[in-house]
Parts: sequence; structure tokens; C-alpha cells
Amino acid sequence: MKIVRTAGAIREEVRAERARGSSVGLVPTMGGLHEGHLSLVRRAREENDVVVVSIFVNPLQFGPGEDLDAYPRDEERDVLLLDGAGAGIVFVPPVEEVHPEDRATTVTVGGLSEVLEGAHRPGHFDGVCTVVAKLFNLVGPERAYFGQKDAQQAAVLKRMIEDLGFPLDLVVCPIVREPDGLALSSRNAYLSASERGQAKVLFRALQAGRPLAEAGDYVAAEKEMLRVLRTEEGVAPDYAAAVDADTFGPPLPGGRVLLAVAARVGPARLIDNIDPDMEETS
Amino acid sequence: MKIVRTAGAIREEVRAERARGSSVGLVPTMGGLHEGHLSLVRRAREENDVVVVSIFVNPLQFGPGEDLDAYPRDEERDVLLLDGAGAGIVFVPPVEEVHPEDRATTVTVGGLSEVLEGAHRPGHFDGVCTVVAKLFNLVGPERAYFGQKDAQQAAVLKRMIEDLGFPLDLVVCPIVREPDGLALSSRNAYLSASERGQAKVLFRALQAGRPLAEAGDYVAAEKEMLRVLRTEEGVAPDYAAAVDADTFGPPLPGGRVLLAVAARVGPARLIDNIDPDMEETS
Repeated sequence: MKIVRTAGAIREEVRAERARGSSVGLVPTMGGLHEGHLSLVRRAREENDVVVVSIFVNPLQFGPGEDLDAYPRDEERDVLLLDGAGAGIVFVPPVEEVHPEDRATTVTVGGLSEVLEGAHRPGHFDGVCTVVAKLFNLVGPERAYFGQKDAQQAAVLKRMIEDLGFPLDLVVCPIVREPDGLALSSRNAYLSASERGQAKVLFRALQAGRPLAEAGDYVAAEKEMLRVLRTEEGVAPDYAAAVDADTFGPPLPGGRVLLAVAARVGPARLIDNIDPDMEETS
Repeated sequence: MKIVRTAGAIREEVRAERARGSSVGLVPTMGGLHEGHLSLVRRAREENDVVVVSIFVNPLQFGPGEDLDAYPRDEERDVLLLDGAGAGIVFVPPVEEVHPEDRATTVTVGGLSEVLEGAHRPGHFDGVCTVVAKLFNLVGPERAYFGQKDAQQAAVLKRMIEDLGFPLDLVVCPIVREPDGLALSSRNAYLSASERGQAKVLFRALQAGRPLAEAGDYVAAEKEMLRVLRTEEGVAPDYAAAVDADTFGPPLPGGRVLLAVAARVGPARLIDNIDPDMEETS
């Protein structure tokens, strides 16, 4: 497994792979790797000759007061995990290699980026789209892998790929959960033992909303999810929503419905969702 | 020369060229072709195995009340000219092939896009960046060719390419002028014979400003250009500016200085510029 740190070096490594006729899968990450990330790498390994994993804590997608500085960084550990999962090239650039000091370009997806996570984290999806567009251009993969855990991010990126014509397929992989239902997240590392117990309420809330959503009563589903979130002291809900899985607007007749929740648990802001059409692994 | 109209077809044609080992140059145009465009095609032909020319009147870069509907469209004539100039593939998509109905993505270059042309045409450069990013992704050229006539556009796109890491070189080609100095423009077609005579004042103004700018007196250069523009009845200046050729901010010590003017002449809004470091052809 190779580790490269510059835009020139990643382009060169991918060019060499292309010259050998290899197909390339990209897994963009911010490090702090867990089994969810590794499931993306394994899937990418099945579907491509070589897997590029980027580790880049992208400052553009953190708002003022968010956890940019606290975000878990352990390159040595991440690299070991990626080697085990079958990554071929790890791209770990410093910030200035991705974002020039006089950077002025922003990629924005309107509408979709302004609700739920977008409403609570202004500018977040602009930062995501801008860095992902750059990673796509630097690596030029056939396929890019993202987790269903960040369902809105996946929907925003799908829209960007279609609108700007990036020549690649977006592959969204199922949420990986702990046996007790907690969705894996790098931010779970912020939780104390008791907060870890409280955090299970996110998945319980989604499960409680599911039958109501399946019966078509989205208002009742949202109320029930919120009610369940509020049963846990120390959990402060940001939202509990039933939305169309593509547009993140109101559920559409015949469309896929996504249930999504976000809440603060101690020092962590956690999100989770259920897309009844996606199977999950644990 | 092949003519293709869909995203799928242009990708397929370029893929076939790549399989033959061809390098690809892209010349994005809005049609209404003149010798300026053809000079781009010839330059692209010298530097690449195959030249793709797009003809697409991009609605995103026209503001309300601008000349989207009036913009000259004559595909048959354009195609003949391109064949003569050595184009290999002409991409003439309908609007919906480039911009999906539910399109939501915008590429914005801050700062640079907000002055001069950007100030007079709000949203114009967002529209340019968004469509050019898409053309880059659909065609995937090694080199893309733009005219110095649209100097600010070239500077904005250079910034976008650097910030988002598009894997290609931007080549900016000199302005082509009529013998009397008028810069070639598709919009010159809007001019009556007498307006055509008045339009020469744009180049005269730039020439009058040049020695003052070369002497380092940018304020005097701007005043002089404006004074000259106003000598011609029926010409309504939008701006006359001396700016840094990369940032379009105030001229910087040691930087390249660009003189730029814009004015309404009858029904046409015309722009012109001189970059003392660029040679011109006529």
C-alpha cells in the first residue's frame, strides 16, 4: 500500500495504475476510521482493481464552533486499518495541498443543502461538495463510495455528480451498527460510557417512527421519533424528519422515504437514519 | 468531422479517441462563430490530436433582460466554419442535455466574479463556471481554449481549474481584431453601419489609456479611457478599468496590468481589453 501526500503524487500514482489498465475506486474519508469506513473500502475492493482512500479533515465543512480541532486524527492507526481492508493507495494531503491559500471557488447544491443538516450546519454541504469535486478531479475514479450514515451528503453529492457530469458512479453503502443499534461514527469517540448508553436512543427513535412512516403517516412518525428522543435525559434533539430520500423535501407519492434524526449527546452531535429500502449490516 | 448532441455520445466519441491514443483539446463556444473562435480551433489543432468544439448558448450565463433569445444561432454556418478550421468533433447539445430540469448545482468563484463584468451582470460568471465545469467533465480534455477577449472569464476559469483541480491546461489566445481595431465579437452582428463606426471607440479608449498605465498612473489611465469613450455619441460606458490581470483587483507591484472597457453601443453591450503582455492578431 502506498501513501502519498501531494496532488502531483496522487495524479501520478493513478496515472500509473491506469496505464496498467486498472479501474479505480475512491473512498473519501476524514480519518478516524471505523468498521463503517472499512466496509466501503472492502466494497470498493470488490468492484475495482485498485482502491484509493483519502484521509483529509476538510476545514471547509466545519462551521465556527464545530469540532474541527477535536476531530479524531490518528494516521498510523488509520493506515494499518486500510492496509488490512485492501486499500492500494492512501492520499493524506496537508490542507494547503487541497485548498490553495487564495482559493475562491465553491460548489453549491441548492435546496437539498439547505434543510436538516444544512439548516443546522450552514455552509457544511458547500464545503463537502467543494472538496469532493476536487478529490474527484485529482483521482478521477470510476466509482466513489460513501456511507448511507450521511444520507443527505450522499443525496447532495448524487445531485452534484449529475448536474456537473462527473464521469463516475456514486456507490452508497449501508450503515454499520453496533449490536445495540448505535450507528458507527468517528464522533462516538467523544462519548463517555453513560453518554454511549444514551446515544442508543437515536436508533430506537427511528425504529419507533418506522411503522408509522410505512403506514404513510409521516407527521405521526416525526412526532413519535421526537417523543422517543426526548425520553433520554441529556439528549437534545436537533430534528426528527421523514423526507423524500432524493430531494429531502416532503415525501412524494411512489418515492423512497427516509427517516432521519440528529441530536446532541454530551459533547457529540450525532445523526442517524433509516432508509427502508437499504439493507443494513451490523 | 462528427456532430454529436448527447452527453452519452460525446463521452463515447472521446473515449474512442482516447483508445486510439489521441490527445484532446476543447474549445467551448456559444456559436455565432467568427475568426476569433476559429483562431482557438486552429491553435487547439496544433496542440492536440483531436479538437472538440462545443456550441451551446448557455442560458445560465444570461441575466434577465439580456440577449439570450437574440443571440446569433446558425448551426449550419458554424459547422462549415469548424470543418474548415480542423475541428474533429462538434458537440451541439440541447439545453436539457446539459442542464437537467431539476439542476441545483452552481459553481461560484468569489471575489474575481463580483467586479467589472460580474458587477454589471450578476450571476454571469456562476453560469459560466457551472457550464464549463460540466463541459470539462463531459469531454475530459487535456487542454481547453478560451479567448483573451473575455479576459475576466479566463481569469475566473483559471481560478476554478486551480481550486477544483481539473486535470487540464487552460490556454488563453489573443484577441482577434478588425483592421480598424474593433475586437471580433458575435455581438457585433447586432450593430448597424453607423453603430459599427462608433464601436471603434472601445479600442481607441484602450490605446489612449495604455501609455498612462505603462507609466504607472492607473487613475489617469482610467479617466482617460472614460473620457475617450464619452467622445462618441451613442456610446454608453459601463466601466473603464485598470486591474491586476489575475485577481481583477487593484494593480499589484510587479503584476500584469489589464486595461478593460465595457460600453453599450446601440443594442449591443461590447467589451474589450488590452493586456500589454499578450500579443494580438488582426
